[in-house]
Amino acid sequence: MIDETADGPHSGGDMDNDKRYTIGFDLGGTKMLSVVFDADYKVIAQEKARTPPDGDPAVILEAMDATVRKSLKTAGIAFDRVNCAGIGVPSPVDRAAGIVISTPNMGLFQYPMKKELEAKWGVPVFLENDTNAGTYGEFRRGAGKGKKHMAGIFVGTGIGAGIILDGKLYCGASGYAGEVGHLIIMEGGPLCGCGQYGCLEAFSSRTAMAKDAVALASAGNMPSVFKQAGSDFKLYKSKMFELGLKENDPNVRKIIERSAWHMGVGMANLVNILNPELIVLGGGLVDRIGMPYLETARASMQGHLMAGIAKSVTVVLSELKELAVPLGAACIAREETK
Amino acid sequence: MIDETADGPHSGGDMDNDKRYTIGFDLGGTKMLSVVFDADYKVIAQEKARTPPDGDPAVILEAMDATVRKSLKTAGIAFDRVNCAGIGVPSPVDRAAGIVISTPNMGLFQYPMKKELEAKWGVPVFLENDTNAGTYGEFRRGAGKGKKHMAGIFVGTGIGAGIILDGKLYCGASGYAGEVGHLIIMEGGPLCGCGQYGCLEAFSSRTAMAKDAVALASAGNMPSVFKQAGSDFKLYKSKMFELGLKENDPNVRKIIERSAWHMGVGMANLVNILNPELIVLGGGLVDRIGMPYLETARASMQGHLMAGIAKSVTVVLSELKELAVPLGAACIAREETK
Repeated sequence: MIDETADGPHSGGDMDNDKRYTIGFDLGGTKMLSVVFDADYKVIAQEKARTPPDGDPAVILEAMDATVRKSLKTAGIAFDRVNCAGIGVPSPVDRAAGIVISTPNMGLFQYPMKKELEAKWGVPVFLENDTNAGTYGEFRRGAGKGKKHMAGIFVGTGIGAGIILDGKLYCGASGYAGEVGHLIIMEGGPLCGCGQYGCLEAFSSRTAMAKDAVALASAGNMPSVFKQAGSDFKLYKSKMFELGLKENDPNVRKIIERSAWHMGVGMANLVNILNPELIVLGGGLVDRIGMPYLETARASMQGHLMAGIAKSVTVVLSELKELAVPLGAACIAREETK
Repeated sequence: MIDETADGPHSGGDMDNDKRYTIGFDLGGTKMLSVVFDADYKVIAQEKARTPPDGDPAVILEAMDATVRKSLKTAGIAFDRVNCAGIGVPSPVDRAAGIVISTPNMGLFQYPMKKELEAKWGVPVFLENDTNAGTYGEFRRGAGKGKKHMAGIFVGTGIGAGIILDGKLYCGASGYAGEVGHLIIMEGGPLCGCGQYGCLEAFSSRTAMAKDAVALASAGNMPSVFKQAGSDFKLYKSKMFELGLKENDPNVRKIIERSAWHMGVGMANLVNILNPELIVLGGGLVDRIGMPYLETARASMQGHLMAGIAKSVTVVLSELKELAVPLGAACIAREETK
């Protein structure tokens, strides 16, 4: 067995050695991921499942429970050896009360998830907004180790962010901080899903990119990798953009570059307000595209900042990728139970 | 004499009663203001002077010294009864080293102002960026009393801001936080003095408003209050916009509304990132126009935010107005010398 002391400051000095495992969980709109971490945050097992689409909280809870138990079974670990669980959810959360405030896509409103899961599992459960959890994961154990002021920006269906200031997660006066996706970068620009015109999300999310792809489809000017999805923008996945880039399709490249370029404007705005040392770019889309996305976004960001401040910030890719949220949630849970 | 204990937490318990006065100083690009505060931050005397325009640091220092001594003389207080001095400067500062980093208009670059003034005055001197100092003044003794998360935005020749998070001034990883004037709110919008297109400052500063006024002049469509300034946009003062609004001139009203409306977009961006409880609007232009500016900016901000977050923030006018910077600088100095 691994020496408990190897875990450093997060070990919880008086934690029972028998209870040395932590669950980190990422509850997404389309899929969920349960990860069993040991005391050193090494991955012992992980399990993915579809998030039930019908929006019934009890059904979602059932699926979460089954996925966690499956990951523990794979790890060969009984629930009584788990010390706590951290859950990343796509919603603002009331941390103290353990309530998911609102996930429009999933039908969870003011839902007491902490209480429900603690009743099922018999261990302390902590909720955190998913992009906050992902940023915290990168800060503790990923690309942001040793930094004090940083932000994580995650690009997928939408765009979310987490903020670390002075070495602590910053959530704002009422838990809404980090709404980078709804920064207005072009008044009167394209309509965003939130109802505003010109939000970053309306330019740079995978949804915005899919709308560009659909425009090509409607003009009969379709990259081969997009053929299957055609005119239904819901069918466009990050993987298709990755493949199109590998095939060097000029239209796919344009769509990616446009997303990354406008992302750079949003990043410049974030930097002008917060002056962080580091921005970590992640999320499904960026994890797939990688360096070409990063390089365009960084060049745009630097070009949209004054020289002094442009030099003050580094931009890197997520190190933890899809483990960022579960790991961050697990760190938060373990630090809270210390 | 006022009871020392009335000053509460800022009094400095072991401060000599003979040394109960603090200098707060606002060094601006065109004028400077020295204020003598007593232990309760009551204004004992204040003195204004023109900032020498020739950009010679020694000449500026001389003028600062003369203005401070004049304010002390008006107050009837000798320098040996001053405990410390706080100086707000229109530049990022190195607080620890007491250095003014760069004020392009005034010729101060890497200038050791703390050391120079301490040599002249024999009291501890502290430097702070002016918009940070102004925000701190509102936070401690003005419109932001009792708040934990707030921002101050100051509109004049340019647009600057200060940020208070968790009850402390937040300056970022390298002192650049709060560059609200250079938020890009419209990619490809009007050119800003910084060389970028579409910055908030290019829409909402007094300089931007003066450019609109000049456009009217060149079309021969001149409100009477603008006649004197004509086509030279440097001659447009906040007072002229105030007068035009009082005369109910429709073009002046449009110029003010445009500034305030775009300011609301910048404020929405700030709120989306920081989720503050309060925004205080001040600076020469807003202090003059007052409620009409505030109401338009607030309506625009709320219209550009999602409902939940829009309800979480209050917007008010500066209470301290031109005393905000000297008072904030004095508070910082006194808290640093405790």
